[in-house]
Amino acid sequence: MVVLGIDPGLANTGWGVVEERSGDVRCRAYGCIQTASGSPLAVRLRRIADDLRAVVERYRPQTAAIEDIYFGVNVRSAIPTAHARGAALVACSLAGMDVGEYTPMQIKQAVVGTGAADKAQIAYMVRRLLQLDREPRPDHAADALACAICHAHLVRTAALTDGRFTQTKGSAYA
Amino acid sequence: MVVLGIDPGLANTGWGVVEERSGDVRCRAYGCIQTASGSPLAVRLRRIADDLRAVVERYRPQTAAIEDIYFGVNVRSAIPTAHARGAALVACSLAGMDVGEYTPMQIKQAVVGTGAADKAQIAYMVRRLLQLDREPRPDHAADALACAICHAHLVRTAALTDGRFTQTKGSAYA
Repeated sequence: MVVLGIDPGLANTGWGVVEERSGDVRCRAYGCIQTASGSPLAVRLRRIADDLRAVVERYRPQTAAIEDIYFGVNVRSAIPTAHARGAALVACSLAGMDVGEYTPMQIKQAVVGTGAADKAQIAYMVRRLLQLDREPRPDHAADALACAICHAHLVRTAALTDGRFTQTKGSAYA
Repeated sequence: MVVLGIDPGLANTGWGVVEERSGDVRCRAYGCIQTASGSPLAVRLRRIADDLRAVVERYRPQTAAIEDIYFGVNVRSAIPTAHARGAALVACSLAGMDVGEYTPMQIKQAVVGTGAADKAQIAYMVRRLLQLDREPRPDHAADALACAICHAHLVRTAALTDGRFTQTKGSAYA
């Protein structure tokens, strides 16, 4: 199973593609889509959607996962991220993929073992788990790979247990 | 000049198409894209993007305008709107349109003459300005038409004055 992970952001959207086989997870590719702050908002969002579509066409993931927005931040910093997240989700749906949604805490728990992990711990564990030569850079790419690993584990666990112990997340929005 | 106005929302995205000729603005069409709260978020956002694309293909607007998010609301209600707004902006950019962005206060000022107008006053003035038989329903459609009227006036004023008295809004996001 090939999984696309996404860490959405207006200036920087991290992405990572992993492949899971019998519980072993390997890295296929990762990167970061950057948009210029001087460009019109619609153009920046289209860039995110277009570049994610190109990633999907190249690596052919069967499923995707995206980080939730952390509500602890103030509304002014959450709004641009939510715009980017909307653009990324449209790209995933246009590519015919279901999208798992995970909170930052769920992702840290899955990859580091504690929901209180920092960026450096996540990058370190992503490197270890994927047996990479170096830690993925920038952090947005490491976070996206962590999101993909989290989803790959959850989907595998759900398949092995017929979903008996796995709670799939419903939509948080009415 | 044909203008598409958008009032973004996850459950309800209003849209309205107006045509401006020599300062006279007429309504071409309006409507509201509704998405079911039980559907996956990515599917709801794709519906918004797909339906807006169909509106663009049918009415061929040359330019678009979209309401800004009102930061006075709390972050939990602003986030779903920002997701929908991101999806709508991607759709506009894919259709090759520039998108004007206007605060609710700018739109009310342009249509009613005061930034403190309520929903009923907006619907009443949209009906009057567009010479409609009845007030547009739902409110989301009336708000979208108001946004389109606001943009049509601004673009016309900018053209008549070579942009000397018109401040075009830059991106609010770094």
